[in-house]
Formats: sequence, structure tokens, C-alpha cells
Amino acid sequence: MTKSFSNLQIDSERLWGTIHETARFGATPKGGVRRLTLGEEDKQARDWFRAACEAAGCEVHVDALGTMFALRPGRDMTKPPLGIGSHLDTQPTGGKYDGVLGTLAALEVVRTLNAAGIETEIPLCVVNWTNEEGSRFAPAMMASGTYAGDFTTEDILARKDADGVTVAEALEAIGYRGSEAVGARRLGAFIELHIEQGPILEAEGKTIGVVHNGQGIIWYDGRLTGFASHAGTTPMPLRRDALATFAEVVLAVERIARELGPEAVGTIGEATIENASRNVVPGDLTFTLDVRSANAATLDKFDIMLRKVFEEIAARRKVAVELNQVWRKEPTQFDAKLVDAVEAAAKELGYGYRRITSGAGHDACNLATVMPAAMIFVPCKDGVSHNELEDATQADCAAGANVLLHTVLALAGVANKR
Amino acid sequence: MTKSFSNLQIDSERLWGTIHETARFGATPKGGVRRLTLGEEDKQARDWFRAACEAAGCEVHVDALGTMFALRPGRDMTKPPLGIGSHLDTQPTGGKYDGVLGTLAALEVVRTLNAAGIETEIPLCVVNWTNEEGSRFAPAMMASGTYAGDFTTEDILARKDADGVTVAEALEAIGYRGSEAVGARRLGAFIELHIEQGPILEAEGKTIGVVHNGQGIIWYDGRLTGFASHAGTTPMPLRRDALATFAEVVLAVERIARELGPEAVGTIGEATIENASRNVVPGDLTFTLDVRSANAATLDKFDIMLRKVFEEIAARRKVAVELNQVWRKEPTQFDAKLVDAVEAAAKELGYGYRRITSGAGHDACNLATVMPAAMIFVPCKDGVSHNELEDATQADCAAGANVLLHTVLALAGVANKR
Repeated sequence: MTKSFSNLQIDSERLWGTIHETARFGATPKGGVRRLTLGEEDKQARDWFRAACEAAGCEVHVDALGTMFALRPGRDMTKPPLGIGSHLDTQPTGGKYDGVLGTLAALEVVRTLNAAGIETEIPLCVVNWTNEEGSRFAPAMMASGTYAGDFTTEDILARKDADGVTVAEALEAIGYRGSEAVGARRLGAFIELHIEQGPILEAEGKTIGVVHNGQGIIWYDGRLTGFASHAGTTPMPLRRDALATFAEVVLAVERIARELGPEAVGTIGEATIENASRNVVPGDLTFTLDVRSANAATLDKFDIMLRKVFEEIAARRKVAVELNQVWRKEPTQFDAKLVDAVEAAAKELGYGYRRITSGAGHDACNLATVMPAAMIFVPCKDGVSHNELEDATQADCAAGANVLLHTVLALAGVANKR
Repeated sequence: MTKSFSNLQIDSERLWGTIHETARFGATPKGGVRRLTLGEEDKQARDWFRAACEAAGCEVHVDALGTMFALRPGRDMTKPPLGIGSHLDTQPTGGKYDGVLGTLAALEVVRTLNAAGIETEIPLCVVNWTNEEGSRFAPAMMASGTYAGDFTTEDILARKDADGVTVAEALEAIGYRGSEAVGARRLGAFIELHIEQGPILEAEGKTIGVVHNGQGIIWYDGRLTGFASHAGTTPMPLRRDALATFAEVVLAVERIARELGPEAVGTIGEATIENASRNVVPGDLTFTLDVRSANAATLDKFDIMLRKVFEEIAARRKVAVELNQVWRKEPTQFDAKLVDAVEAAAKELGYGYRRITSGAGHDACNLATVMPAAMIFVPCKDGVSHNELEDATQADCAAGANVLLHTVLALAGVANKR
């Protein structure tokens, strides 16, 4: 931290005001936000953001996937800028903080530096990544994924929403199909502030999560094949019940996750009994399984343990168990120097903090594969997110923004007090 | 058994021929039958049945719900006739034997008596009960239920199928809305031959099931209310997972059924995760539960054990468990004298037999509440029923019909060899 600015604080009221001002764009009656990517409400939020960034002295550039880069010059313009930001799109019944906090806190950092007359050594770039949520167009985090080289721009432009509208058409419709090639605007590093979307900080009474890594994910599709039979005429010992077998599978997933914990989780989110009927012993059942850990070796171990116990259950129950991996994403390792900088800022500012793993995917996770990156978490009420009930306190939002500010000061350096 | 006729046998080829002749009415490409009650195919089967009964010397009467009573006079016409039969309707993708075997075996008994020139002391009545299956109109077994006083005729006539057609309209459309009041045609007793629809006889290598009772049933609707949360960000110990809780519930039902076995069964046939998503810990889940036993005290005990263990699981998991009884049907006790007569016939004819509980509901179960009744089971392949794959052997069908014949001879008495 640059000692002479150690008392510098963002303007908590101003940040809180912008969060609630932009929450109008797609506001729902229940107090949430519905701002699907590249829709009319997203355009309103983008237009507001562009105007606010320009008013703060930034030059706003838009790439071919609509990602907005608001550049605040630094003393040394030969250096790639330090990226800060998040996303402004929301889930169909989303909240006011997911993505919004990180984007507007980045803007607030610029406003605070402006007010303090501070020029940084390295330029800054406030970024609004297109389609983080993935609710309208798949996949989620498509713009940062393309930026990181996981997809081609052409592929993503051709993706369609449920109404058959392509990403290209949606971008044209709201005037955000930019001319810059995706990835051409090079960033030196990226820091993203975000609500935790989980219950850990709140449960432990910590204000700041210093995110040092992100979970890898394996997605599976599963199928159980037993034998459908009459609920009244089939004695218990003669049943080949797909649901009772599944019950053992569910508990096995939970047990393995606990054994490999605390940093492994396993979730069965979907399950469907085929041709279900009140008086028929279930014969066929399909399910999905989501396994996560920040440690790739733990993911591998989870997979091996799962298959072993599933095999045992299947043999004993005379029910066939299939488990097919449909996706695997390796764990994210955030940059040690950046993580240390975030931690130092939290400590210096006197906030309670802990190192934490990101359980959800974020644009910063994609970017971490191609540049130094880190994240800052603040608590959200009851760990609830992707929900109109999503909530966070003004004090926690301000704390996160202050940590972002001081991380920026430490990393970008102060060139001049103008 | 009337000793002088102890060698009398039904005509196995003729019975087998009629089963396959009538299987044309609603035949499916996969070898099954789709003959929904009171539809065009049901009319064809009814017309065939009426003509066959009349050709066998019976007078066919139809009641207000379309049930067909084919009367074969006995010597003493002051006595109420002995009813034999079953139903001719099928499931949407049903088989060739469910219901059909019992109805056509009853006709075969009449034909055999005719061929042998036997007049019984008590008249016989071959019955085809309307809508046993309940697939088109609810409830199942509606005609025998109304006959037994469980419903009023007016109520049942007003019931609608999925297209809004009432039972009254459907009866009119096929010309089977009879003039007799339901229940007016008094029967002295009722014997029903049926395929087992379960795997026990086949598993034990027995030809005849002497059905001495029928399971009572409790149906429940259940709901689990936990808390939906993010699959990645919610540590295992902080979850209130409705599905993991449900898994314990499923295994508890299975364990209790086994503990109260062998004559108790418990089945969860339907389960739905509300707002299911691959990466969301399930928060809400609904399910159905079907509990059966031939012993009312066992049903009560099952209920008490369920509620106790559900409460324990719910408290430990911090997930609310609701269990609402939506229907209860008391166990059926078949008439001891009739059951003995069935057993004596099976024994005399040299068939392997065992006493057995009916796990499914049958018209005979309804009738048992208002008259002496009993049932005869024969094996079906793999216990499969309500399925186009439903199968039974010619020899077993003939064995069942022979047991029916000799039970009839014992109960109705031989008046004269004409």
C-alpha cells in the first residue's frame, strides 16, 4: 500500500447510490433485477455505465462481443492496464449485487482517484464483461472465456437464445457490437470484487474473502436402470428399485464429499423418475451430478471413490448404474502476488478477512488462465444469490470497494497527486 | 368337489382361442392390448362377449354403469346366482390376460358345463365389470365399487375423462347404458380368476394362488422443505439439502417395510425436485408414498414408524418433512369357506398351490365387503402386468380355469346331468 494514501476511502454513499440507481434497469416487483444479457434493460445499464465512465474521464471501448473497457490513463501508457470490474447482466430473477457490485465498485475506485487527484503509474481499465450469467445465451462467462481463448468469436456470435436470436443479432440490436477484436485489448492483470454467493464469510463474521483459488468442476449425467414393477404385488426382496438405489447414491455422494472436505462438494441437483406413477416401483431414473474442488487431485479421487461405491451399490441392488462425465473444468489458481496484495489491503484497512475458495465460476477464473488475476469477496445475506432476495450491507460493499481501491493503489502505483 | 365330475376339465384350446380372439380388439403392434373402458374397442369386446354368452344359453343384462351380467339358470332360481368373472377393459398399454382371463375363463366354465350337460343347483352369472383399470375414468374398479355402495351411480356417471366426456356419455355412445339399477342384480357370492401380476408364484414354481386376503393401502403425499443454495459455494455442513434428506426417507421406507415384512410393502413412486438445476442444492421436493399390508394393524404400525423416523431425519437435517395421508383402503378378507373351496379344488386337481395375498386391487376386493368372495391367481411371466409384455402360459390359464370350474361345481352344486 502506498503509505501516503493509506487513509483514502471510497465514497460509500456514492457507491450505494449507483448500485441502487442501476438496479432500476430491470427492477422486479420483489426487489430483484431481471437484466438478461444484451436485452433492452442491459442496454439501459450499459448506456448508463458508458456515460458514467466517460464523465469520470475514461475512454470507453467495446469489443466484438460487447465487452466494455473504460480506460483511465496512467503515467506509463506503454504498460498494459490493470483491469478491474465484473458484469452488469443478471439472472432472470437475480439480485442487485451479483456482478453489479464489482463493476460499480471499479467505477467508484476511478471516481475516488479522480476526487483525490491521483494519477496511477499503470493505466486502469474498468471492464463490464458480456454475458457472465449464461441465462440467455450459453455458455456462461462467454466473453471472458473467448478473451481467454476457450472459444472463437465466430462460434460465440452464432450462439442462439431460446427465441433463435443470435448473439450477433442481439449485439446489433442494442448497438454494442464493437469493432475491437476480442482479446486485442490486453490487460496486465485483473481484480474482481464480488459477493461471496455462499455462507462462509457471514457464518464466520468476516468482512473480506481473499480469494486465492477457484473450484474445478466435473459434471456428470447418470442413469439407473432397475425394473419397474407393481407397488402392491412385488415383495420388497424381489424389487429392483431404481429410486431406492438412487437414495444410496445420493448419500454416497454426500459422504464422499464430507470425507474429502472441507474443500470438496458434491451435489445432485436434478433427478427424474421415468414414467413415474404412484403405484409403480421406479424402474428408471436419470440424474445429474456436480462435483467441485479447488484441488485437481481431489477431483480425481472423488471420481474414483464415486465409481467404486456406485459399482458396489449397483451390484448389490441388481440395478445398473451409469455415470458419464459431460464436462470438466480444472481448478483456478489465482496469482500469489495479487492475492497477497488483496490480503495486505484488507489487513491494513483493519477488516476481518480469511482466505477463501471461489465455489462459483467468475470471469476472473477465465482470465486467470491468461494473466495474473485475483478476487475479493464480501458477504451476502444467508449466502443467497441468483435470487431476488440477494442482499448485502452498504458497509460490506464499501469495505470490498476499499480493499479494491487499495489493491489498485498497491499494484498500479501512484505516479502523481495532481 | 362333486366326486362324479372330478375328471371334468375345461377345454384348454377353446379358452386359449377366445383369449387370443378377443385380443384383436385393441391389439397393439407390440403384442399388447389398448382397450380403454367404454371406448370403441371395449364396445367390440363387449359385443363379442354378449354374443358368446347368448350362444352359450345365457341371458345378458346390463346395469346403469354398463356392467354385463350373463345369467345361466340353475335348478333353484330363488337362490341368488354365484358370480364369476372379471373385466374386459385394459390399461393404455396393457396385456392380453389382465381381466380378460377371468372373464373368458368364466365363459369357458359355462361352455364346459353346457358340453357336459350339467345343470347347477344355484344359477351362475358371468360378469364383466365396467372400468376396472381406471385409466380413462377415475376411480379404478368404479362399477364394483358402486355395486358395493362406495359411490352413487349419479356421481360415477358424471365423472369425466381427459377429453371431458362423462361416463354417462361414453356409455350412451357405445350403447351400454343399461336399465338395471347398480346393485339390483344380487349375487350370492363372487369368484374371480386373475393373473397374479406379481412374481411370487413363478418364483416358487406354484401354479395356483389361493387368494385369502388383499392388501389395505395408504396413500400419502409428502413434501420436504430445505433451502436451495449454490452447488459450488455452499459447504456440505451448511446445506439443508431436500434431496439428501429424501434419500434417507426413501431408505427408511424400505427398511420399515422389510422390518414389517414379508406382508408389508412401501413404495415411493413419484418424486419431483422443485426448480431443479444441475448446480443448485435442491431446496424443495415433493413425493408420493404407497404403503400396503393385508393387516390393518400393520398399516397403523407402518404409519407410526414412518412418522417417527421422518421426524428424526427432519430435525437432524433441518429440513421440514410433511406427510399427508390422502387415501386409506382397509385390507380385504376373503370368505373363509370360499377360500377353502378354491384350495380344495386346486389340491384335488393336483396343482401346486399356495395361499397368497392380493397386492393389487380387484373387483373381487370391492365385492368382498358385501358378499362372500374369493380369488384364484395364476402366474404371469416375470410378474409383469400393465405392460404389453404381460404373458402367461396356456397351461397355467387352463389350470386356473379348471380350479374355477371345480370351485363352481363345489359351491353351486350339480342338480342334474341333462
